[in-house]
Amino acid sequence: MSFRLLTVSALALGFVAAAAPLARAQDAATVERAIAVRDAALTSNIALDYVTQLTTRFGARPAGSKSEQDAAAWAADYLRAHGFQNVRIEEFPLVGWERGEGSAAIVGRNAQSLVAAALGHSPATPRGGVEADVVRFSSFEDLQAADSATVRGKIVYVDLGQMHPMQDGSGYGPHTRVRGAGPGVAAAKGAAAFIMRSVGSDEDRMPHTGTTRYVDGKPTIPSFALSAPDADQVSRLIALGEPVRMRLTSTARTYETHSQNVIGDLPGATRPEEVIVLGSHMDSWDLGTGAIDDGAGGAITVAAAKAIADSGRRPARTLRVIFYGSEEVAQPTPQTGNGGGVYARNQGAALEKHVIAGESDFGADRVYALRLPAGAQGSDFQKAATRVLYPLGVLASDQVETDGGVDVGPMGPLGVPFFGLAQDGTRYFDLHHTANDTLDKIDPAQLSQNVAAWAGLLWLIADSDVDFRAMRPATTTATPAAH
Amino acid sequence: MSFRLLTVSALALGFVAAAAPLARAQDAATVERAIAVRDAALTSNIALDYVTQLTTRFGARPAGSKSEQDAAAWAADYLRAHGFQNVRIEEFPLVGWERGEGSAAIVGRNAQSLVAAALGHSPATPRGGVEADVVRFSSFEDLQAADSATVRGKIVYVDLGQMHPMQDGSGYGPHTRVRGAGPGVAAAKGAAAFIMRSVGSDEDRMPHTGTTRYVDGKPTIPSFALSAPDADQVSRLIALGEPVRMRLTSTARTYETHSQNVIGDLPGATRPEEVIVLGSHMDSWDLGTGAIDDGAGGAITVAAAKAIADSGRRPARTLRVIFYGSEEVAQPTPQTGNGGGVYARNQGAALEKHVIAGESDFGADRVYALRLPAGAQGSDFQKAATRVLYPLGVLASDQVETDGGVDVGPMGPLGVPFFGLAQDGTRYFDLHHTANDTLDKIDPAQLSQNVAAWAGLLWLIADSDVDFRAMRPATTTATPAAH
Repeated sequence: MSFRLLTVSALALGFVAAAAPLARAQDAATVERAIAVRDAALTSNIALDYVTQLTTRFGARPAGSKSEQDAAAWAADYLRAHGFQNVRIEEFPLVGWERGEGSAAIVGRNAQSLVAAALGHSPATPRGGVEADVVRFSSFEDLQAADSATVRGKIVYVDLGQMHPMQDGSGYGPHTRVRGAGPGVAAAKGAAAFIMRSVGSDEDRMPHTGTTRYVDGKPTIPSFALSAPDADQVSRLIALGEPVRMRLTSTARTYETHSQNVIGDLPGATRPEEVIVLGSHMDSWDLGTGAIDDGAGGAITVAAAKAIADSGRRPARTLRVIFYGSEEVAQPTPQTGNGGGVYARNQGAALEKHVIAGESDFGADRVYALRLPAGAQGSDFQKAATRVLYPLGVLASDQVETDGGVDVGPMGPLGVPFFGLAQDGTRYFDLHHTANDTLDKIDPAQLSQNVAAWAGLLWLIADSDVDFRAMRPATTTATPAAH
Repeated sequence: MSFRLLTVSALALGFVAAAAPLARAQDAATVERAIAVRDAALTSNIALDYVTQLTTRFGARPAGSKSEQDAAAWAADYLRAHGFQNVRIEEFPLVGWERGEGSAAIVGRNAQSLVAAALGHSPATPRGGVEADVVRFSSFEDLQAADSATVRGKIVYVDLGQMHPMQDGSGYGPHTRVRGAGPGVAAAKGAAAFIMRSVGSDEDRMPHTGTTRYVDGKPTIPSFALSAPDADQVSRLIALGEPVRMRLTSTARTYETHSQNVIGDLPGATRPEEVIVLGSHMDSWDLGTGAIDDGAGGAITVAAAKAIADSGRRPARTLRVIFYGSEEVAQPTPQTGNGGGVYARNQGAALEKHVIAGESDFGADRVYALRLPAGAQGSDFQKAATRVLYPLGVLASDQVETDGGVDVGPMGPLGVPFFGLAQDGTRYFDLHHTANDTLDKIDPAQLSQNVAAWAGLLWLIADSDVDFRAMRPATTTATPAAH
């Protein structure tokens, strides 16, 4: 797919005619310059170089692993080499999780191997594995309602069916509830282990890992995700009236380590203390190489900032690129946690000068909508942004950006507003958290469209005095969903 | 995709006008009956039931494994239950191969896991694996020409680039040469191990296994296939100027076992000694569940024969369905080998009454061409067959069917002619020999089109006296390619 800019006549029809007198920040010269930055970024940017080097040199980058640490050091050098200033690494302690070896199989009648993966932070099985009969549930509610007698000593299998692909990714939520809370519910009823259909929209024989939750600070029972074809298979066997008995093994372990945020600035020309945060995360799940989750986000944000730096004029405010560590972690605590929480806590009073924050953590497919704080609906800023973004196929959304995402989210309750450039997630959950999250899945044309959208929007924000804090609603409900 | 029959007017235009007086075997009544059988098979057949039960109950069915044996016993029962007669299991000894555990990783600088799989019949590594520097070749010829000094003690990596998808599957050949002969060439130059880009047209992070060849009856060096994204990764690292060192482990082993052919007949009404063979194979590679390779072939052939049995009239000649054992075997010998060779040898003089043979072993996507023996070009039989098949989208090919395929192929040098119903292989090598070869990859509409094409064609052959032996060329070159 390639992104051609719409012609000026289409634009004029839709927007120029309706343009009210712009506030100083969104005057014609600023918009013109944003359009120029956008167009330059669309045709030339460093995003593909960054994500190619990152994923090729370091492969998977699990939170707290040596490869995440090495990648952070390399990324800091990359920022310095591209003109970012005040580049620093913000370390924090972490309980890491390592998959080790694992297996899943039907044993006895209809014996066959299954393709499964332990869920993040789930504990190991005893040596030799867990072997037990399988009891199947087709909803979380059915599992919750089940009598302990039917579950005790069994392997609990939850199959909600295939996740529905949606452009905005909204098919994900109902399934993550099973992944997060299912093992704890099964454990409380005496289950020996937990296995679920992968949270994904594909039919590849690849499990989707992802984090599960501890209960009372402790891991519960060994927990696994089964690939979609294997989930079909197990459910079909049960439908054929066959008894299903499984053996599950896992040598997963936790260990003390550290993760880190990598931070680099393009200082503002006239109001450098006013900071705009461009977030993404450095860690990935261990099965793939974290190209779409979230090497792409780093690529988009660093390339957008670089495109502005290369425009020949420095905007008024500071652009801060942050590659957060440990986004995928299960158990953020005040002592050990995810990079987003660490950054927000460490900033202290400096957060008051954080103008706005956004993150890119939904792959590399095209941006289709701009979301702003509640008070920005119908504002001159939104109109100016639409002039810059609509030719890329990005519409102004009437959905308000309230939570920002896992990485920038912790700044929300501390007063920082958010913007969101919503990406097309239709195929995101085909790949997410699987071995298939590799570089080849990134479409360079769509990656560049992302960079152009970020660069154009950021110019408007950074070279203006628009006050997003004034546009925030009085109260926020900052409960970011895990990505 | 669904297959609608073309309208009668299109047919009349193309074929009825040109129809010469048909030989007795291809008279109007026979063609009419073939068309009725075709249409009944298109809308109702047992193919999906067969392949669903087979792949669900037994999963992977490696040659000589208990699951292949169990599946054979089940399939014999399935044939009996569907009215086939003289159902029998023809056992033969076999050296089986079991994958065990394996791993591949880059170690040292740029350390990362790789997704790879041992090639069929390759030997285990020593305990602890093989660790060595990698030397890359981009062609088989470059490997052949290499000085032993550059290869000795190294891991030889051959990357021919992505296989090209072709409708007729012709992209496969150049790559199988590397898989079959590459390890032997590398071993002769003192290489420690061999790894190649998977033979496949996909960009999934799944290795394609497949058989490699022994040299002088002995396994050579541990040999692996690397998934396409990992092959890209390794080649990119080398292009970045990075040294690449790998560790490869495999616990593969061979063992004495047996495989078997499953044979069932629909005896002919008037000339039952004249046999038409409908071949496919029961074994699969161990990574997937053998849905497209080759559960689908069994499904298509058994369903086509059953459609004829259900037509209310039994044709003159015998239809013989054979689910061959051990098609994927590396090393057929007079003592231990593949099912096709065993059947051909055991038939002895009865082969003289084998009228023709065909096999279905290229997935479940639609049939697009009919191939016949050389002498059938322009024959009345070909014209009649075209009348039956063209409405399904099947053209008469000017390519001659000479080798039949791996399973029926051994009958060729013993005088049996072949037909071929060529299937669309455009996406076949995305899935072939990978874990992704699972039931969900079968499109039920295209599967039914296969059944209809087989049923219509078989009626013409079975209820006629057409003599394909008279249409064979004087000499044949029967060197079937491995599937």
